[in-house]
Amino acid sequence: MRPLIAILCLLPAVVLAQSNPAALAARQWRQQHERAIVQELMTLLAIPNVTSDRENVQRNATSIMQMMERRGIATKLVSVAGANPLVFGELRTPGAARTLVFYAHYDGQPVEPTEWATPPFEPVLRNRAIENGGAIVPVAAAGGTIDPESRLYARSAADDKAPIVALMAALDAIRAAGLNIQSNIKFVFEGEEEAGSANLEKMLAANKDLVAGDLWLVCDGPLYQTRQQSIIFGARGIATFDLTVYGPRAELHSGHYGNWAPNPALSLARLLSSMKDPVSDRVLVEGFYDQVEPLTALEKKAIADAPAIDATLMDEFWLGSTDGRPHTLNELITQPSLNIRGMASARVGSTATNIIPASATATLDVRLVKKMTVQRTLDVLRAHLRKQGFFVVDADPGADVRRAHPRVAKLALLRGAEAARTSMDLPISRTVIRTVESVRGKTVSLPTMGGQLPLDAIERATGARTIVIPMGNHDNHQHSSNENLRIQNLWDGIELMAALLTMELK
Amino acid sequence: MRPLIAILCLLPAVVLAQSNPAALAARQWRQQHERAIVQELMTLLAIPNVTSDRENVQRNATSIMQMMERRGIATKLVSVAGANPLVFGELRTPGAARTLVFYAHYDGQPVEPTEWATPPFEPVLRNRAIENGGAIVPVAAAGGTIDPESRLYARSAADDKAPIVALMAALDAIRAAGLNIQSNIKFVFEGEEEAGSANLEKMLAANKDLVAGDLWLVCDGPLYQTRQQSIIFGARGIATFDLTVYGPRAELHSGHYGNWAPNPALSLARLLSSMKDPVSDRVLVEGFYDQVEPLTALEKKAIADAPAIDATLMDEFWLGSTDGRPHTLNELITQPSLNIRGMASARVGSTATNIIPASATATLDVRLVKKMTVQRTLDVLRAHLRKQGFFVVDADPGADVRRAHPRVAKLALLRGAEAARTSMDLPISRTVIRTVESVRGKTVSLPTMGGQLPLDAIERATGARTIVIPMGNHDNHQHSSNENLRIQNLWDGIELMAALLTMELK
Repeated sequence: MRPLIAILCLLPAVVLAQSNPAALAARQWRQQHERAIVQELMTLLAIPNVTSDRENVQRNATSIMQMMERRGIATKLVSVAGANPLVFGELRTPGAARTLVFYAHYDGQPVEPTEWATPPFEPVLRNRAIENGGAIVPVAAAGGTIDPESRLYARSAADDKAPIVALMAALDAIRAAGLNIQSNIKFVFEGEEEAGSANLEKMLAANKDLVAGDLWLVCDGPLYQTRQQSIIFGARGIATFDLTVYGPRAELHSGHYGNWAPNPALSLARLLSSMKDPVSDRVLVEGFYDQVEPLTALEKKAIADAPAIDATLMDEFWLGSTDGRPHTLNELITQPSLNIRGMASARVGSTATNIIPASATATLDVRLVKKMTVQRTLDVLRAHLRKQGFFVVDADPGADVRRAHPRVAKLALLRGAEAARTSMDLPISRTVIRTVESVRGKTVSLPTMGGQLPLDAIERATGARTIVIPMGNHDNHQHSSNENLRIQNLWDGIELMAALLTMELK
Repeated sequence: MRPLIAILCLLPAVVLAQSNPAALAARQWRQQHERAIVQELMTLLAIPNVTSDRENVQRNATSIMQMMERRGIATKLVSVAGANPLVFGELRTPGAARTLVFYAHYDGQPVEPTEWATPPFEPVLRNRAIENGGAIVPVAAAGGTIDPESRLYARSAADDKAPIVALMAALDAIRAAGLNIQSNIKFVFEGEEEAGSANLEKMLAANKDLVAGDLWLVCDGPLYQTRQQSIIFGARGIATFDLTVYGPRAELHSGHYGNWAPNPALSLARLLSSMKDPVSDRVLVEGFYDQVEPLTALEKKAIADAPAIDATLMDEFWLGSTDGRPHTLNELITQPSLNIRGMASARVGSTATNIIPASATATLDVRLVKKMTVQRTLDVLRAHLRKQGFFVVDADPGADVRRAHPRVAKLALLRGAEAARTSMDLPISRTVIRTVESVRGKTVSLPTMGGQLPLDAIERATGARTIVIPMGNHDNHQHSSNENLRIQNLWDGIELMAALLTMELK
């Protein structure tokens, strides 16, 4: 979870000459207000935001509403029963025909405080990354400057409170410079993204007019590993399963019954092995790839144009091989994947005992690509289990079922969300690429990210297009301990948001 | 771990007409002293005896010495540094040419008190098994009788303190009846059997003269599942391994890297699958069976003569199939086995996260049969891993090793002990069978048990033969919670021990 590309981290911050007028205004404003901007982010980071901590999540929502109201943005909390609210904000632009929606999320992943160098909700600035010996430094005095290679440590510093503060600072800069905004602007800040956006689609659908827009810019995720700005036009979907197979009713003595009582760990091992080809690493589940929408020529070209990162990543991750060769990581994440998240049967190592386990479980995730559905993926997996000789159930089987069938497997769908991918050659897409490149130079455009974002839920509920604009450093320890935001990424993000807020959609 | 064969449990206690004079004397003595015998066992059971609890284990040893000294047996504690002592006892018989050694162990498996109906070291009598609604009943008043279907609940009630008390009661009975003992008698009661008898061979070898004998009767293990008396002429050995394979250095996001970073859980699944044939269930590791000593015609006949139990066990264990068909359980446990004790990689179910695991581990046990060695088993397993394309290490590999090899596996031997099997047609074996049958009627003689006992250590250190004489009920919950001893088994055991103490070895 820590893609710290050692070599790349040594690159100095490259500050581009700025030609986009809004971005230039943002740079000037930021240079005069570094301390205030960082302080506004630190104040927000000091409010605990683990998705399940509803009381504190509500405090975050209130705080974000106040940040917007201080800037004259009309705000509203949108929710349904049992959900953390969406914080909605709107700036109408008289005469504008188009509406741009900026999305970010203000909730964060669970924290394990003992694994953090400093408490996750007591933000601190360090002069560099902890793994490079970073020490805590004071935030500059008012009017002072902050080392752009310093980093802000706190849960959600990068994922995903930084874009919220960057948007606010960009808006301040635009106004201070007297620049015009061309579109209606809406802000939707979600409070449940880290728990799978379970209520997002429902909340959007119930407030269709309020959240209507032409394009959602989803400000989430890290930049490309070379620190180049990226634009991502889609996200894979996901379907998560628990798969359990059964041995004897209770654990049996492996001496008394070994060779005779079927071992469920071996049975699971065989079943998992049957799912992927050991040479091509392709999924062998029949029909798995049937719905996949192929990449367009433009999408293939974009992938080919992205800087090569595989060798550097292999060093970083201590890998002696990769799957799916000769294809690269960027190619492979445009394909569906079947991954074992975890596997468990009885106990191992010093806690292992002399037994034949009673059951064995694997948790799987399938990453879906555009046009694949969760339901059909479940169907083809079930059919695969049957082909392997298993009687398939969806709840724990009793004695009757287990006595009647030589092999029984339980397959339970835990969660499903479908993929989305916006065409890179739509006029709206080209405008975004042009705007981003005017601020950040040559960018890395990719048809999809490998991970999941609620793009599909947004598109289905609102009919809008979605494009992902990342801001955080790739080495931000997202979802892990010691999450951090490199300050230069915040500065760059403010300039980028200023340009996007002021761009004209044709 | 609970072979409760429901149908068989309903059989009433069958009390055989007794023709062996020592057994008859034992019955009469027991009938007059039921309360005292059970109280002596309960007193011993009240001393906690988990192998690692050295202080209490020592209290057990002292208590057993006192039990023997009260009966005029010369005693001695035998130990080496760091070991729980062997309690040794000796009764010399003037003019005897042969020496019989009775072995049992006084240590017990760890306990999880919350899983016990009553505390494991506060022995109670119940009128029947807990799973049949057994309620606590008082032990009979002095001179009263105890229901033979009642059960004594405590850790080690069956495994393995019952034989110690049965031997003492049998000796009391023999003396009360004025019967002669034909051989020198030695007692060796071990205090580390449940931790693998790590020091047994060393202690015996260092006291070779003291423990010398012609035949060791190893009083341990449960009776056959039909409640028939069994005589077991050997035990499988064991070799336990941890097998670990590696993925990325740390867990990686399955969205960002799924399809590209090799998944160690899948790698382990493939490796485990490669080890056994899915049709024959034979081990596919080359050379695995090379050293196996075939069964003799007599051993094969003994297995064929044993009552069929597979169908009943399948019902009991909820099994819809068994491995190694058409062979039966009794046949299969004479063959070596390769078993997965447990398997682990990252987390499953509600604690699973969206990652590619960093490693995957299985703990394996190989059950060895006569002539197989631990070292060669380790060698053939290593060779198998190499054939599957793995670079094999025996300690955690660093970055250099993992970058240099597409697949790396760590194989660590945790424990090894070899098998032993005494020929069933030796004169000494025939004498034991004849004596046991004179007490207990038709017995089930089997060439080996599936589990491991330190027979090999005893034979190697002392040069003696070993034969296993079980006493406990098969449904005793050995190693688990609510371990118990059926009182009829104790009564039968006293009669059997009396006959064995007085038998004449030619």
